[in-house]
This record gives sequence, C-alpha cells and structure tokens, in this order.
Amino acid sequence: MRAVVLHSHGGPEVLAIEEVAAPVPGPDEVVVQVAATALNRADVLQRMGLYPDPRRIQPEIPGLEFAGTVVEVGARVALWALGDRVMGIEAGGAYAERIATHERLLLRVPDQIDLVAAAAIPEVFLTAWDALVLQGGLTSGRWALVHAGASGVGTAAIQIAKAIGARIAVTCSSGKSEACRALGADAVFDRSPHDWLAEARAAVPQGFDTILDVIGGEEIDRNLQAVATRGTIVQVGLMGGSSSQVNVGVLLTKRVTWVGTTLRARPIEEKAAVCRRFAAEMLPLFTTGALRPVVDSVYPFDQIADAHRHMEANANTGKIVVTIN
Amino acid sequence: MRAVVLHSHGGPEVLAIEEVAAPVPGPDEVVVQVAATALNRADVLQRMGLYPDPRRIQPEIPGLEFAGTVVEVGARVALWALGDRVMGIEAGGAYAERIATHERLLLRVPDQIDLVAAAAIPEVFLTAWDALVLQGGLTSGRWALVHAGASGVGTAAIQIAKAIGARIAVTCSSGKSEACRALGADAVFDRSPHDWLAEARAAVPQGFDTILDVIGGEEIDRNLQAVATRGTIVQVGLMGGSSSQVNVGVLLTKRVTWVGTTLRARPIEEKAAVCRRFAAEMLPLFTTGALRPVVDSVYPFDQIADAHRHMEANANTGKIVVTIN
Repeated sequence: MRAVVLHSHGGPEVLAIEEVAAPVPGPDEVVVQVAATALNRADVLQRMGLYPDPRRIQPEIPGLEFAGTVVEVGARVALWALGDRVMGIEAGGAYAERIATHERLLLRVPDQIDLVAAAAIPEVFLTAWDALVLQGGLTSGRWALVHAGASGVGTAAIQIAKAIGARIAVTCSSGKSEACRALGADAVFDRSPHDWLAEARAAVPQGFDTILDVIGGEEIDRNLQAVATRGTIVQVGLMGGSSSQVNVGVLLTKRVTWVGTTLRARPIEEKAAVCRRFAAEMLPLFTTGALRPVVDSVYPFDQIADAHRHMEANANTGKIVVTIN
Repeated sequence: MRAVVLHSHGGPEVLAIEEVAAPVPGPDEVVVQVAATALNRADVLQRMGLYPDPRRIQPEIPGLEFAGTVVEVGARVALWALGDRVMGIEAGGAYAERIATHERLLLRVPDQIDLVAAAAIPEVFLTAWDALVLQGGLTSGRWALVHAGASGVGTAAIQIAKAIGARIAVTCSSGKSEACRALGADAVFDRSPHDWLAEARAAVPQGFDTILDVIGGEEIDRNLQAVATRGTIVQVGLMGGSSSQVNVGVLLTKRVTWVGTTLRARPIEEKAAVCRRFAAEMLPLFTTGALRPVVDSVYPFDQIADAHRHMEANANTGKIVVTIN
C-alpha cells in the first residue's frame, strides 16, 4: 500500500509517499481502507520530530484519524463486517491506504455523512467532547470558554456545547469571528490585538464553568482570572509554550480544577471506553444534524505537504482533510 | 462571654481577650460551650489581616475549630441535645467561650476522646481526608505524598492513608522524621538541606497517585515531577508563595489533575455534606483507635498569643490546642 513514511523530520517536504507492507489484522482488529484522513497539530509536531508515536512503530507513518471502509476483519471481530463505513482515531498510521485498528475503537459513520467529511470528525469531536463534558463537567445551563474557536477542536466544541444546552464563548483571531458565530457561539472575543479578558468578564461576569485551552502560555493566567469559582480548566495543548508563570493562589481561592489531557497517549482500554460512550452520546447528534463536520479544505494524498503548509499558516476554519483512496 | 477580638491586625500581641455578647442560636443552630479550640495556619494569616473571615462578621473573632458541649439548641434542631459532646469547624468565632453553628456541621466526639484532644481533630482530619480521598482519589494500594508530614494536616494524613490501606510518603523538616514514622509513614524524606525528589523517585519509581501540598512555591515543579501518570495534586496551601513558574507541559504528558481547595470558603451545604460523610467514614476509626488526634501542646486561653508564637516557630508536631472553658 502507499503511505507517508517519515525517514527524517523537518518541514512539509519530508512527507514522502512510498510503498510499504499493508497491515495484517490481529484477532480483535479490523483493517480499514482509508478514504480520507485529516490533519492535526500533533501531525506537524510529529513531522518536526517533537511528538513521536508513543508506540514507536517502524516505519513511522503519521496520521491520527481516518474514515473508510472495512476490508478485513480478525478472527474474533464481532462488531463489524466487510463494507461497513467506519471512522476512528489511532496513535499513528492514518496517512496510509490501509490501517489496522482494534474493533472497539471504531465508530460507525452516520449514513448521511460521506467518508471525506467523516474524516473531519473523530479527533476534534472526541477531543472537544471528552475535554468539555467528561473532564470539564460541562452541562446544560453552564458557560464554556474555548480558545481558538475556529480551529478543528473549536468548531467541534461550539457545536457540542450548543447541542447539550450549554452556553459557549470562544476566542479567535481576526477574520474568523463570523464563522464562530455561524456555528452557534454565544459570544466571540477577538484574540488580537486586544486582550479578550475584559470582554469576557463583561459578557459572563460570574466566570466560565469550563475552559478548554489549546494554547497555554500567556492565556494561563487569563484563564485563571476568567474561570468561575469551582470551575475546571482543561489543558488540551500548549501552542503558546509549555512553561508559564502561574498565579497558583487563584487555584485555591476559586477552588479550581486544572487538568491536562491528551487522547493519543491513552492506553487502549481508556480510548475504547471514550469511543463507546461517544458512540452512544454524540453519534446520534450527527444523524439529527445537531452536529456536523466542519471541513476547511480537501487535499489529494499527493499534496499532503501543501495541506501541512496550509495548517501552519493558521488560516483554516475547521478541518483540513486529505483524500487517500 | 470572653472571646478574642481582633481590633487591629499584626503580631500575636493583637490577640486580646474581652467580653462580648454570647451568640443566640438560629432555629437550625446549636450553641456549643467551647472546651478547647486549636490553631491553624489560617489563624496566623487572619491575625495579620491577610485572610479575613469570609462572612465578615463583627466583632472579628478568629478560630476555625472547637470541641465542647451543647448548651443551647434552636427550635428546629433534631440531631443534638443539651450536654452532647461535639466538635466542628466554622469560618471563624472559635476563639470564644461559646459558638453558634448549624446542627448539620457538628460531629459527635467519640466517647474515649476528651474534649481537649478532640479540638485537635476537626480541621486537620477533615482537610486531609477531603484532600486525599474525596478530591485526590486516594484508595487502598495507591501511594500518597504529603508535604509537612509533622504538621497538623500531615499527621492526620499519615493516619488516614494507613487506615484505608494506602501507602504514604511525607516530607518534613529535620528532626521530625521519627514522629512521622511512628505515625505510620512508609517513607519520610527530609526537606532540608537536600532535595527530596531524588529520594522520592527511588522509593516510588512509578510516582505518587495523590499529592497533598500545603507549601507550593518551589515544590510545585517537584510535585509535577513526582506525580504518577493520571495522578492528582491537591493544593491546600501556599506557604511557599502564591506565584510560581510551572512546567505546564507535564500536566498534559502525564494527564495530571491539579486542584486547589479550601474548606473555609465553602457554602454551608458543601461543608455539611463533607461533615456528614466524614461522620460516616472517618469517625468510626477514632473509636477503633486507627485514628487519633495528635496534640503537640496545650495552652490556656490567656496564653493564646504564646500559642501563636509557637506555631510561627514551626517547631510543633501535630496540633496546638488552646483550652477555653
């Protein structure tokens, strides 16, 4: 099969497609013919050598999510049959024509969503839902704040919050406000050039119950100022830097919970538990139309380096999808 | 009644005892004749004007805990009768001959514990149990790390961890190691002059599931290095300073939960819930002898300023108790 193999790390030019052996399913595994994959910030870090696949599989094939069709099933597979339309997350290996994955990690693609759009679902909707709801405790009536509202995770977060009856404010860079509002954001704060904190306090004086932050850095102290008493800050990324001066006193006075999270590093039993619960609680909302994948752009497999360049330009709203088969 | 009233803030000399009006119970309240109170770090901060009673009651009477005898009950009180031996926490007012408190905040003093020793129980056992077990998720088999092992909270934490089948390591200053070991600590690390982190890693290479920290400051980054993957750090105090440079990246890679907490600022329904659960889960262990108050020293009411000086000298092991009636 054809796959992107990283022989070295660096710029988008290191993303070379070559022939490699196709995966063989283990007894509980399914092999999926990948219709499309989608890009994540972690892919850029991995390409630069900063965020290796924790499984350290050789050859090193990046790619954290996929949508496609079941083409092989292991001897014990009970949930899936050949031809099923599926999507899922893996710790790597999705920049390829085929990927093998445990059957309990797979999600069924809702009938009305084509496989190219479906590739835009798994990582960002699982991440946003896990962060906001499972770890952040967001419920109906409560207020969420999400940074980078026009990002893949941000666009998923807006829809999820509205779908469960919560209220949501987002920060975003100039020019992306309208897209965030169109998705349902109750308040949108421009991150540049001015400080969003004053606007956020005016809009939600009692503070935010749940903050989902992919940025960190200078946002950390602002998060602590913006969070409600007993609120939760879920740290999903640190694009703004990993070390920060933090006013820890606020953690105590507001009794804040600050939790770091990542999907990729979790053991299979935790990933499967999240995926099964997502299948029960979120997938039906794609069928009703309350949730929909937000596709910024679609690149053919041969132009995956250009897709990376597009992500690094920070100009996307929603997901950058790459078609493979 | 006689009570300590703060007319100004400053050193121990501002702790003046005078006559004030005795409290009158509300319909759900009990008036307790205070046999003894005990000191907390928060009392020192309040005396210095840095940590006022959140209720802002005048005159300002400090004191967060007490043990004594029920001498008045409000019209709707159902749980207590005159003469009952009780103990409890309040947001202030315990440096006094009498205190009024909601009946659902009170705890029964176990028969074999005298009221002077009982005053050493409420704040530190509630704080340590809430932090380790309710917020920190400590269970049998898991490892806790607690700073200031010889402090009131530390000596309670050691006993609670052992009583529920957990393992516990503590840090403490030189000269207090034996007291910590005698209470049951599985490992004791000297905080001075050398760094405890290397010893902690050698003793518990997989890291600590729950860290209870009253210090903060320079310990914060060491906590992040010492905590296990998916572990919880419960920040109960910040004696080492409230602003710190923090390696937030570790929160993500280890998926750490860092939660700030304080008992004093909680609304009554939360305090009552903690107290009722403590009564069910912890009080029986005082009856069996698995838990016991650790009294460092007992001062008469007239010498409460000396009691404060003793606390500020950091020489105590366990609680400093002040007898009142």
